[in-house]
Amino acid sequence: MKAEIIAVGSELLLGQITNSNARYLSEKMTEVGVDVYFHTAVGDNRERLLSVLDVAVSRSDLIILTGGLGPTKDDLTRETVADFIGKSVVMHPESLAHLESYFQKSGRPMTENNKKQAAIIEGAEVFPNRNGLACGMAVNFKKTFILLPGPPKELEPMVEKEVLPYLSVLTGSENVISSRVLRFFGIGESRLAEEIDDLIENQNNPTIAPLASDGEVTLRLTAKGDPEQNILLLDSLEEKIMSRAGTFFYGYDNSSLTGVTAEALSKRLQTVACAESLTGGRFGSMLTSVPGSSSFYKGGVICYDAKVKQTVLKVSEETFSKHGTVSARCAEELAVNVRSLMNSTVGISFTGVAGPDDLEGKEPGSVFIGIADESGTAVKELSLAGSRRTIRERAVKFGCWYLLKHIISDETTKE
Amino acid sequence: MKAEIIAVGSELLLGQITNSNARYLSEKMTEVGVDVYFHTAVGDNRERLLSVLDVAVSRSDLIILTGGLGPTKDDLTRETVADFIGKSVVMHPESLAHLESYFQKSGRPMTENNKKQAAIIEGAEVFPNRNGLACGMAVNFKKTFILLPGPPKELEPMVEKEVLPYLSVLTGSENVISSRVLRFFGIGESRLAEEIDDLIENQNNPTIAPLASDGEVTLRLTAKGDPEQNILLLDSLEEKIMSRAGTFFYGYDNSSLTGVTAEALSKRLQTVACAESLTGGRFGSMLTSVPGSSSFYKGGVICYDAKVKQTVLKVSEETFSKHGTVSARCAEELAVNVRSLMNSTVGISFTGVAGPDDLEGKEPGSVFIGIADESGTAVKELSLAGSRRTIRERAVKFGCWYLLKHIISDETTKE
Repeated sequence: MKAEIIAVGSELLLGQITNSNARYLSEKMTEVGVDVYFHTAVGDNRERLLSVLDVAVSRSDLIILTGGLGPTKDDLTRETVADFIGKSVVMHPESLAHLESYFQKSGRPMTENNKKQAAIIEGAEVFPNRNGLACGMAVNFKKTFILLPGPPKELEPMVEKEVLPYLSVLTGSENVISSRVLRFFGIGESRLAEEIDDLIENQNNPTIAPLASDGEVTLRLTAKGDPEQNILLLDSLEEKIMSRAGTFFYGYDNSSLTGVTAEALSKRLQTVACAESLTGGRFGSMLTSVPGSSSFYKGGVICYDAKVKQTVLKVSEETFSKHGTVSARCAEELAVNVRSLMNSTVGISFTGVAGPDDLEGKEPGSVFIGIADESGTAVKELSLAGSRRTIRERAVKFGCWYLLKHIISDETTKE
Repeated sequence: MKAEIIAVGSELLLGQITNSNARYLSEKMTEVGVDVYFHTAVGDNRERLLSVLDVAVSRSDLIILTGGLGPTKDDLTRETVADFIGKSVVMHPESLAHLESYFQKSGRPMTENNKKQAAIIEGAEVFPNRNGLACGMAVNFKKTFILLPGPPKELEPMVEKEVLPYLSVLTGSENVISSRVLRFFGIGESRLAEEIDDLIENQNNPTIAPLASDGEVTLRLTAKGDPEQNILLLDSLEEKIMSRAGTFFYGYDNSSLTGVTAEALSKRLQTVACAESLTGGRFGSMLTSVPGSSSFYKGGVICYDAKVKQTVLKVSEETFSKHGTVSARCAEELAVNVRSLMNSTVGISFTGVAGPDDLEGKEPGSVFIGIADESGTAVKELSLAGSRRTIRERAVKFGCWYLLKHIISDETTKE
């Protein structure tokens, strides 16, 4: 079934709010096997909404409208859709009772225009609103129109409790959509795409959708059909992909590099301490964003000033004079010394040039990450591109990635 | 000028990501007097994108497309728009050079499909991408088409630096929109609104738009008319607002609490060091996000583990036994000791409970921030609401606000 989502509200077009309902509804529709092909946002304007409906009925079987069911004059979704399909708007007794009891409870007077929120398109199936005043509805006239309230806290429960059951009757279960997201780090989108070029080229069911963001790449595998069959299809495609790019894989769906690393540390009862020059505390901040991080994160030293590297982390005079602070040698000493200072299983260090200016004759993007444990020390050298912010963010993610690789492998990951 | 925004990307229709670019662009267009009448999202599908373009040119003068400029096969915005207006796609030498230097720098091989990102529609005005690979562009053919990269980190700077100047030429200057944003911290939106109740009530030109986000409140003042007249109108309204809420004001437009604090420190040649328990390095990370931060930021100790507070920051045994780590006394010692350890003008400390669980019998949101300098120590106690993440973020912002107030005032800001 082809569907589209139409959000009604001038506040969207003024940029006052984000159309989060479109994302939520798309996710839910995908889960129940409804293909969403278009999102539209239009203002509180009768003519423009009619023109959008004209286009929608020409291309979609299911048209979901959000917003414009409120009490004020500019709320005109219900009335406009009714006119569009040539039906009248009638009062819905149960919803009116719901309204009256609400205002009675709240002690506020119910104004005439509030009654609008209990009005429905004649013949519509009504979706009661347990978290607000305006009821939702579904009405069929050649195509199926579903009208939902704009506020997410009203819309989302209504979708779960009313709309999805209503749709499952329309769609049936033979073409359910099953999605699986594979998350990768340390490989660019274009290179990953090339690794699985033929799989993308010949994709059909499941489909493969690559997406790059914040230095990570995800592949969304989507199968359509019988639920159990879908799992088998996804498993076999995943296996093919893993055999080529598995070394860069770190997790599924909504997992994060931080979360996966935190889990790996906890599971192995290992602890980490960090020495942060380049990253200025960002690595520690990221690890401690995980609830319960005190079980695996001891702490760190933000050794931004060179003197702090010497006084607090005891980097040797020789290292400074011979190698400088932006060097593999300095990264190594920082990792080793912060580990012993804080008595952790693993020590990790970040030193480098975030920019905009060069430092010690090294360009922005020049980064050294040290990882030390009882068995030894490994130093990774990176040359990162981008803004100061990007360089710092990427360095932290690479540090997390190296740490993860280090703790899940037996020997230190020297390269 | 009538405009609409078309987002291209199947991930939007699968509900994988929210179309935040539409909100951002709408806000910016509104600021420069461009009326946005429609948002559309369409998948990575040539035919459907063509059908959307058909509708768009029939109703809009300016069509802004986002996404689909990447290197993979499913990125087809550039090519589809070119076909739609009957122009060819050509390689853009400067952008290609930018690509090549990026890959040279990052040490990653540049694949054939990467070159796509340096291709443009013939005759287009090119918008360089300072934060990514795909260049943006504007091309005129009866209507104006603007193509922008999907990632907000790339799109937003490109809009500020390239697109808005480009549009100001198109829109003309007789009724220019002049905006000024006043930024406040430490006061809630509703209280600020009350302070200037009458000004909001009688607003006309300039208009006043309050907005609360991330614990800050901004007032956007917008005047419409002759540019010079606008400045005078904005000045006089700003004066009225400042006389009532000036103590909570910290900066204009895109300035940030961090940036303003960094500037204040540099100007006074003061340095700061931080002891971070609750915030886990977030405060240091925030200060060091400012270019040149090494001039005012010495470093810090992320004293997450209690032992680290004792061994590295010498918090007294008595403080632990009598007051605990989440206490004013501990915050005071941490601030004093990190200051002397790192030899900075000011020392600041964060200790508290981020949650989700209670700590030492104290609830999540209980926060102590210590500020120490040669003249003494001040401790602020906060009780913050919200998630673990919100509590940590707010604590860091309050710390920054207290630090700013402290260094711009002569005496320590005891309360």
